[in-house]
Amino acid sequence: MKPGIPKGTRDFSSTEVARRNFIFNTIRYAFELHGFQPIETPSFENSSTLMGKYGEEGDRLIFKILNSGDYLNKVDNELLASKNSTKVTSKISEKALRYDLTVPFARYVVQHQNEITFPFKRYQIQPVWRADRPQKGRFREFYQCDADVVGSDSLWQEVEFVQLYDAVFSKLNVKGTTIKINNRKILSGIAEVIGAKDKLIDFTVALDKLDKIGKDGVIKEMLSKEISEEAIEKVQPLFDFTGSNTDKLASLKAMLSDSEEGLKGVEELTFVINHIAELGLQTATLELDVTLARGLNYYTGAIFEVAAPKEVKIGSIGGGGRYDDLTGIFGLKDVSGVGISFGLDRIYLVMDELGLFETVALPKPKVLFLNFDEDENLVKMKAINELRANGIKTELYPDVASSNNQQKKQWKYVDKRGIEFVVTSIKDGKFKFKNTQNREENDLTIKEIIKKVQ
Amino acid sequence: MKPGIPKGTRDFSSTEVARRNFIFNTIRYAFELHGFQPIETPSFENSSTLMGKYGEEGDRLIFKILNSGDYLNKVDNELLASKNSTKVTSKISEKALRYDLTVPFARYVVQHQNEITFPFKRYQIQPVWRADRPQKGRFREFYQCDADVVGSDSLWQEVEFVQLYDAVFSKLNVKGTTIKINNRKILSGIAEVIGAKDKLIDFTVALDKLDKIGKDGVIKEMLSKEISEEAIEKVQPLFDFTGSNTDKLASLKAMLSDSEEGLKGVEELTFVINHIAELGLQTATLELDVTLARGLNYYTGAIFEVAAPKEVKIGSIGGGGRYDDLTGIFGLKDVSGVGISFGLDRIYLVMDELGLFETVALPKPKVLFLNFDEDENLVKMKAINELRANGIKTELYPDVASSNNQQKKQWKYVDKRGIEFVVTSIKDGKFKFKNTQNREENDLTIKEIIKKVQ
Repeated sequence: MKPGIPKGTRDFSSTEVARRNFIFNTIRYAFELHGFQPIETPSFENSSTLMGKYGEEGDRLIFKILNSGDYLNKVDNELLASKNSTKVTSKISEKALRYDLTVPFARYVVQHQNEITFPFKRYQIQPVWRADRPQKGRFREFYQCDADVVGSDSLWQEVEFVQLYDAVFSKLNVKGTTIKINNRKILSGIAEVIGAKDKLIDFTVALDKLDKIGKDGVIKEMLSKEISEEAIEKVQPLFDFTGSNTDKLASLKAMLSDSEEGLKGVEELTFVINHIAELGLQTATLELDVTLARGLNYYTGAIFEVAAPKEVKIGSIGGGGRYDDLTGIFGLKDVSGVGISFGLDRIYLVMDELGLFETVALPKPKVLFLNFDEDENLVKMKAINELRANGIKTELYPDVASSNNQQKKQWKYVDKRGIEFVVTSIKDGKFKFKNTQNREENDLTIKEIIKKVQ
Repeated sequence: MKPGIPKGTRDFSSTEVARRNFIFNTIRYAFELHGFQPIETPSFENSSTLMGKYGEEGDRLIFKILNSGDYLNKVDNELLASKNSTKVTSKISEKALRYDLTVPFARYVVQHQNEITFPFKRYQIQPVWRADRPQKGRFREFYQCDADVVGSDSLWQEVEFVQLYDAVFSKLNVKGTTIKINNRKILSGIAEVIGAKDKLIDFTVALDKLDKIGKDGVIKEMLSKEISEEAIEKVQPLFDFTGSNTDKLASLKAMLSDSEEGLKGVEELTFVINHIAELGLQTATLELDVTLARGLNYYTGAIFEVAAPKEVKIGSIGGGGRYDDLTGIFGLKDVSGVGISFGLDRIYLVMDELGLFETVALPKPKVLFLNFDEDENLVKMKAINELRANGIKTELYPDVASSNNQQKKQWKYVDKRGIEFVVTSIKDGKFKFKNTQNREENDLTIKEIIKKVQ
């Protein structure tokens, strides 16, 4: 039997865990610095909590858990004979694995509304599961890192989230990210202006290709999607949508002058963009991107997406936005929310490609005591305890070497794990201490070793 | 629709997450200090990896994941009509949630044997799932914290694990734990001496009641289990099994003098007990407990179990032992392993009962800037950025207060979250800074605030 794991899942080696934890810890630190509090929810929820929240496609991608015991006993014979998998599922499965962190969070807020102090700034770093077709950078089990505020519609939150993205990526040394921002109300304004709400997606998809196929190409595509020439004429400014964010805002303001909602969107964006300009960012750039339309049916205000530094070809490494009725699905109305998410796996790939993991300390002992003579071990173990009491990661090689070959094996272990300091033997109450980097050897007391290593 | 979660699962509030992380971080720190490296494995494994590894009862308690898509399509009609849940399961479910960390670890070692440097000291802190009947302290989703060494049969590992238990519980301030130790070979020796291997469990179960029902009661129970009077006579010393570990070892040595395996067990225990006596423990006590028989069919050498301090009535808070053929089930023979586990939920209950969470810092901002005047917010946000750059958790209350009532709401928020320092307003370039503990108020510059807070 050759052991393996399900496709789309991964084992993580010590090095990978250390690197992932470096990212997690950086995000967690920034979340807490910005006033977010952690919560955790169960890995599986009642199916009724999840089903129907992510559309038909989402329902299909949710991993369902089989009921325990004699689960077929109560299923109707006829239904079973029909072999209708979807209908049978609802009879034999009551629980399902979390698909994202947003729906469980909404459920949490409603369920615990009396214990929560609003506005509630929560963060959550947990895995989610999707029965998606695995491909490069897409897995069936992966982590999401979400921060959301519920119970406040202050635009200062949007300002803070831009700063939070900048803070995390700067701390990770991922320089040159682009934080794209848009507003659902601007998209609605454009829909109003072109006179066809149902064409909005076609419109933004076409507009998004401006860089690639040019103005003429975009207009051609729009016409083919039955967007009228008249409508296209009205949004003319979008085809020369370059320049600073301020230029873009001015151009939008003029274009959307007939749409109340559109102008509200411009006003909101102006607030965020101007305040960020005042406050400054460390390494990121904030860019108004009117083609940004992720989760169109979901967001009601700001929409965010973070693009990796230009030298790395990869999709977005984060995203989010404002949604005005997160908890409505669970019966708590009028709670506004806004949040962002970090894509751990994509960030990992970016950092790996940029060589940013070199400084991440690997989980290995700082000092290894070799085990060449059983009679020395008790004294060595006492010394090891002293090093550990001083916070120094220390190990005794477990098995005693009774031959030259076995001694070589221990030196190989030192080499393979890249251990910096080694104690070989004891002489006259002093330890033979070797620096494997510069090959320096000294006879030291335990106090001297501690000093040298720290 | 009233939202809820599946029975046996839990939501964790910020306070609970902070406390749990305090325990996790303490364990993780000690694991790394003692030379263990982290790995992580997927939440679900192929069913074939897990099924049959935990006995019939275990198989029943494993959560199975339904195949995706039209999973009923390929199932034989007749089989389906038979409504045999167990047989149908193997046709409609190929994956299952991890039941413990040991089997996935064994699978990991075999799968990655060529990348691993042996002896391999790994730790793993991840949740596991069991479809058990939920009760106090028993959940369907819970964390295990395991440290194991594979590829070494040195008894120094056993010594180290006793020290590791002591290090973790001392660091957690859980004083007065009892680390019970036994050895499977001693149990085998006893079985040999009483001439009935199949009676070993009955024997140890009865012996375990010595404290409660006295010598006569125990003998009566043994006789009722058809353990012969002659056998009972032979193990007479076990009925007066008090005194120091050294006394107990001497008594075992005499009693098991005819059993080679038993004597080997005594020798191994002597090694661990004597070395721990030399090295000393911080707050735990090591106690030879010959009735300790957990996982009898699994362990081959040392057996560990940790009892909580006597003032807390709760089961074991950790356990482990040596198993000589962990990876054999996956085709890699002759790899000896030894490991221990920490029971997070039980430890949490113990610490809660002993009031040991008081010092755990809650995830809340150190400084809150109240939001009474929108015109002040940009200057406040600049100040907040400076505080954050100095590592001080700081927040701006999101929504501006435009009435007395809304100002009160902000003060209530300060109170509810127990925030220590508050900035109310700005005057002549200085911040009105209030210490909510001693009610002291000062007009300070941002540099002065940083100094005061740090």
